[in-house]
Amino acid sequence: MVKVGVIGCGYWGPNLIRNFSNLKTCRVIACTDLLEERLNHMKQLYPGLRTTTNFREVVNDPEIDAVVIATPVSSHYGIAREALDAGKHVFVEKPLAQSLDEGRKLLELAQKKDRTLMVGHTFVFTAAVNKIKDVIWSGELGDIYYISSSRVNLGIFQDDINVVWDLAPHDISIMNYILNSRPASIAAMGQSYIRPGIEDVAFLLLKYPQSTLANIHVSWLNPNKIRSTTVVGSKKMLVYDDVSSLEKIRIYDKGVTVTPHYDTFGEFQLSYRYGDISIPRLDDAEPLKIECQHFVDCIEKGATPRSGGKHGFEVLLALDAANRSMRGRGAEVTIDYPASLGTV
Amino acid sequence: MVKVGVIGCGYWGPNLIRNFSNLKTCRVIACTDLLEERLNHMKQLYPGLRTTTNFREVVNDPEIDAVVIATPVSSHYGIAREALDAGKHVFVEKPLAQSLDEGRKLLELAQKKDRTLMVGHTFVFTAAVNKIKDVIWSGELGDIYYISSSRVNLGIFQDDINVVWDLAPHDISIMNYILNSRPASIAAMGQSYIRPGIEDVAFLLLKYPQSTLANIHVSWLNPNKIRSTTVVGSKKMLVYDDVSSLEKIRIYDKGVTVTPHYDTFGEFQLSYRYGDISIPRLDDAEPLKIECQHFVDCIEKGATPRSGGKHGFEVLLALDAANRSMRGRGAEVTIDYPASLGTV
Amino acid sequence: MVKVGVIGCGYWGPNLIRNFSNLKTCRVIACTDLLEERLNHMKQLYPGLRTTTNFREVVNDPEIDAVVIATPVSSHYGIAREALDAGKHVFVEKPLAQSLDEGRKLLELAQKKDRTLMVGHTFVFTAAVNKIKDVIWSGELGDIYYISSSRVNLGIFQDDINVVWDLAPHDISIMNYILNSRPASIAAMGQSYIRPGIEDVAFLLLKYPQSTLANIHVSWLNPNKIRSTTVVGSKKMLVYDDVSSLEKIRIYDKGVTVTPHYDTFGEFQLSYRYGDISIPRLDDAEPLKIECQHFVDCIEKGATPRSGGKHGFEVLLALDAANRSMRGRGAEVTIDYPASLGTV
Amino acid sequence: MVKVGVIGCGYWGPNLIRNFSNLKTCRVIACTDLLEERLNHMKQLYPGLRTTTNFREVVNDPEIDAVVIATPVSSHYGIAREALDAGKHVFVEKPLAQSLDEGRKLLELAQKKDRTLMVGHTFVFTAAVNKIKDVIWSGELGDIYYISSSRVNLGIFQDDINVVWDLAPHDISIMNYILNSRPASIAAMGQSYIRPGIEDVAFLLLKYPQSTLANIHVSWLNPNKIRSTTVVGSKKMLVYDDVSSLEKIRIYDKGVTVTPHYDTFGEFQLSYRYGDISIPRLDDAEPLKIECQHFVDCIEKGATPRSGGKHGFEVLLALDAANRSMRGRGAEVTIDYPASLGTV
Repeated sequence: MVKVGVIGCGYWGPNLIRNFSNLKTCRVIACTDLLEERLNHMKQLYPGLRTTTNFREVVNDPEIDAVVIATPVSSHYGIAREALDAGKHVFVEKPLAQSLDEGRKLLELAQKKDRTLMVGHTFVFTAAVNKIKDVIWSGELGDIYYISSSRVNLGIFQDDINVVWDLAPHDISIMNYILNSRPASIAAMGQSYIRPGIEDVAFLLLKYPQSTLANIHVSWLNPNKIRSTTVVGSKKMLVYDDVSSLEKIRIYDKGVTVTPHYDTFGEFQLSYRYGDISIPRLDDAEPLKIECQHFVDCIEKGATPRSGGKHGFEVLLALDAANRSMRGRGAEVTIDYPASLGTV
Repeated sequence: MVKVGVIGCGYWGPNLIRNFSNLKTCRVIACTDLLEERLNHMKQLYPGLRTTTNFREVVNDPEIDAVVIATPVSSHYGIAREALDAGKHVFVEKPLAQSLDEGRKLLELAQKKDRTLMVGHTFVFTAAVNKIKDVIWSGELGDIYYISSSRVNLGIFQDDINVVWDLAPHDISIMNYILNSRPASIAAMGQSYIRPGIEDVAFLLLKYPQSTLANIHVSWLNPNKIRSTTVVGSKKMLVYDDVSSLEKIRIYDKGVTVTPHYDTFGEFQLSYRYGDISIPRLDDAEPLKIECQHFVDCIEKGATPRSGGKHGFEVLLALDAANRSMRGRGAEVTIDYPASLGTV
Repeated sequence: MVKVGVIGCGYWGPNLIRNFSNLKTCRVIACTDLLEERLNHMKQLYPGLRTTTNFREVVNDPEIDAVVIATPVSSHYGIAREALDAGKHVFVEKPLAQSLDEGRKLLELAQKKDRTLMVGHTFVFTAAVNKIKDVIWSGELGDIYYISSSRVNLGIFQDDINVVWDLAPHDISIMNYILNSRPASIAAMGQSYIRPGIEDVAFLLLKYPQSTLANIHVSWLNPNKIRSTTVVGSKKMLVYDDVSSLEKIRIYDKGVTVTPHYDTFGEFQLSYRYGDISIPRLDDAEPLKIECQHFVDCIEKGATPRSGGKHGFEVLLALDAANRSMRGRGAEVTIDYPASLGTV
Repeated sequence: MVKVGVIGCGYWGPNLIRNFSNLKTCRVIACTDLLEERLNHMKQLYPGLRTTTNFREVVNDPEIDAVVIATPVSSHYGIAREALDAGKHVFVEKPLAQSLDEGRKLLELAQKKDRTLMVGHTFVFTAAVNKIKDVIWSGELGDIYYISSSRVNLGIFQDDINVVWDLAPHDISIMNYILNSRPASIAAMGQSYIRPGIEDVAFLLLKYPQSTLANIHVSWLNPNKIRSTTVVGSKKMLVYDDVSSLEKIRIYDKGVTVTPHYDTFGEFQLSYRYGDISIPRLDDAEPLKIECQHFVDCIEKGATPRSGGKHGFEVLLALDAANRSMRGRGAEVTIDYPASLGTV
């Protein structure tokens, strides 16, 4: 039985409390928020819950095994550091931290303290994303040529981060996960239309090993909500439409084949293949529930989370590279992965 | 009555002959092709038509006023130059020529000879593209922030040109036309998956004057045929879906407004507007028919064609810049427009 | 301040408690259910709520003004009758009762006791349905020729009622409301595939006054969830797609016009009109909230509810006619509306 | 080599001439039309073609083996009868004739003369309809519960036939073909909105053997073009959308299963199955070409055409029953199939 304390009961915290509360191997002991009103609301929903406006009472509570952080990103580092120092396991909402330096320190601290550190990259717990990973690694798609992703909508404009830091963490986390890889370089072009200095439209080009190219288009300025990812392989192609409720994934038995030359005068021969489309049925389970269960399981088994500190830090490295490329007028930025991250 | 000779009766030529033949103010006198078989087929369809395998017989025929060229791009320059030299008006399929140098010479020759030179950029004659231009210039969309275009499909891979030269001419021609402008710079990133050295997937970023940004995604490696252009304005947004047969244009009364500050402590205030969508009815006329009529009208009135040599050459300049940027790993390439093109 | 007691805290009751609790002019005093477990859950969510397993304690509570009934349909009549007898206003989930006789008695009792009786036909409180009514009565569509509705899905098969009683109440309530009318006759054809004697697929044809025809297709045996209603008028046409989240209503400026004859030899002349499509933005408010507020308002003002006992009874009359037609192999059944219902 | 003469060169005749001309085992010898202008046009396209305004010259031409009739339906009987009498094979556009009596006589005459009689029900030659038939007869869908079809659009209103005779022949031909059966009875309800006495909206209910029910909705008064057929089986379901160009058929691995009772107190148990969707790739061949080839093949082999006189006459029987049911206010009309048609 893992005993959990939750820091932050604003927009997302209650969803985490609800899901952790419903797990059989976990108990939510306490929660904290700066606003008494939010704490009263939580107490009404969960009468046995201890509440306090002082997060240190949770972080230092000897009964508590794990701390769940759902506060603004600027406070992630400070709270997570104190929790790890106090020997707690830590779940922190995405992104892991506000800077590379903060992220690296949290990762190192968790390793040193031998505690579980997990980041709330929820997409890697969805049925759709796991189906895509399975399909890719089964070899059904063949070699992965490129991935093209669009995540656009009207708003919601953020005050302090640009559209890349707001929306691209989803795509980068998904791509790193399904490819079981990480980009070697990023080139990014962005533009600020609504607020000077905060990009609201951006295009990213990520180069993964083995000649896999990935494109990400993020925008707060689009009339339609689009969340679409196309994976083009040498054998088949797959389209993931996260806006669709019932038909999220389509696998196209389509492709182009290069025919080997038979003689030196032979032309470059291509043959096109147009086959069936299949739409696999996906499980309906709530991804957040799976995510919470995964955190508790990792603590109990000492396992490395799917979206652990390393995964979260690698996303930070890509976001940081994208920002630097945008400042450099789109020049390609190579990402240096610290040796401590290992190779994929 | 404009008398026309057509060079090239392969894939596209017969469509041009059919449309020019149906015009009241035009007569197709002769056609030429290297293959007798194609000429016999044309003669069967149009018994009065003169045919020859020697294109110079058409180019130098004193009865002929205008020459229409539907041959492979490598021969555009040679044929068009001879036709202009012989004092003919010239219609040439897109792209105008294979290189900047060839394009420039044709443009200059047409000016010197005072002949009409027109390029077959058919999209600028469609009801949809003209509706978009009207909507933009009526001010209904407000300032144009950015345009995002995708033109992707599975194939058809070309032998001698990359996907940018194959598909992006459509988008560049459309954008230049609806904005009545031309890009100051282009950055482009492409990748070759199927044939070494011939890009089959590419992303372009075009910077137009007045902070209008445009993105073009072209690909021969996509399971779905997508031809979609989104125009984001300060007041409204428009989506043009050329694959849809009946609902090509949707105008969204949607946007985000920056509220003026009322005091120095005021936060940056945004308000979102979500209103109606309207789908205008478009005319059904065949764009190619309008294009052919336009060529004949321009000859008769001495008017400058909508897709004249200048328009076609500006498209070449953009394609050339895109290629150079791709060779330069995505570095932004500024386009120098010759003074003779004038300003827009 | 209207004080409410809720009978039934199963699937739908909690939604009603939540919405009535959030109203400023209403207070939920007590609730009842046969299961202690449900009552404990309600008490946890709303600590001040009185609970009891004996519904008569609520019905006879002198502090309570109005009783809200969310129990299985077989108990609607018994509970509602006792509540009206005790002088309470009554809100009952749809359908009003299990039989015409029960429905008529409740309607008469409410009139005699001068109490508000309202049925939970939620669709007449949606933004979409009210928009359709507005559009029809503005004259924009012209005369209404016919309405065609499909409400199909896979399941959920009911134990005791057929697909007509399960799904068609929505369509009949909507049609009566938007036309401000009621069908003069119904013909219905149904078939039982899964359970003998319980129709799971049915087609209804309703004849409204002024030659308006309506068709309803209901099914528990369809691979897709379809909830679509097409309204064809003499001037324009409208399609209501309730499955779409953002584009529920489309108005087509399309039609066919009969040209008057000019001479006795004239042919019957038709002209077709194909114009724009418009998709109006609809309000996002939760229909159930509006419904609950409407009940409270009607009590306070002594007004007749939009979905009052008369409306609910007229739906019962149509359902009963449909069942009789199905038993009679599709013969048209004329509906006799009691004089007490008045004319529309 | 089958030598063909074509009667009628209006809207559809030229398509038939083009397709018959392209067949290797067939030659179009002559054509006829009342208008000289149409004949001149045909002669220009096919210089070797003999033309005449007198159809009897074609019907009695000893060189001609088969007569193809693409004239208004009122003349089908007269021309086809003369052609059969002259010993020709006959292809006649759908419907076979204007009345049951005419249809029966043609069928009998063809049998007596031992000539091939075929009706132009093109849908049974499409890849989609044949795929559906294959899927049904492979058993993949299980028992066929019901088929629901919509064929609606705005117009085109016909002068002399109602919407049932205009559009429902397609659905009836398709259903009879894919089920390899024919309806035992039909009930139909129609309404005339635009022209008194000519139904422009109708709903048909067809009862096939083995409890298969089919519904057909036809309308000239709908804003959208819909051509959709849903086939619900005991194991899987299939949707055929003929408006879609690339995804005409979707097979849903969805269903509801009745669990056998284990004891007398057992409840009626249902289980729902929600599985994958598959979209088979269909062949692109032009159905009209296949249809023409089939006619020629049947002549050469003495085989019975897929859409032979019997098939066409069974469609007439259903249309006639639908008309009688509409005149009888929707009463079910049993169809008597002459013994000479055999059983299916």
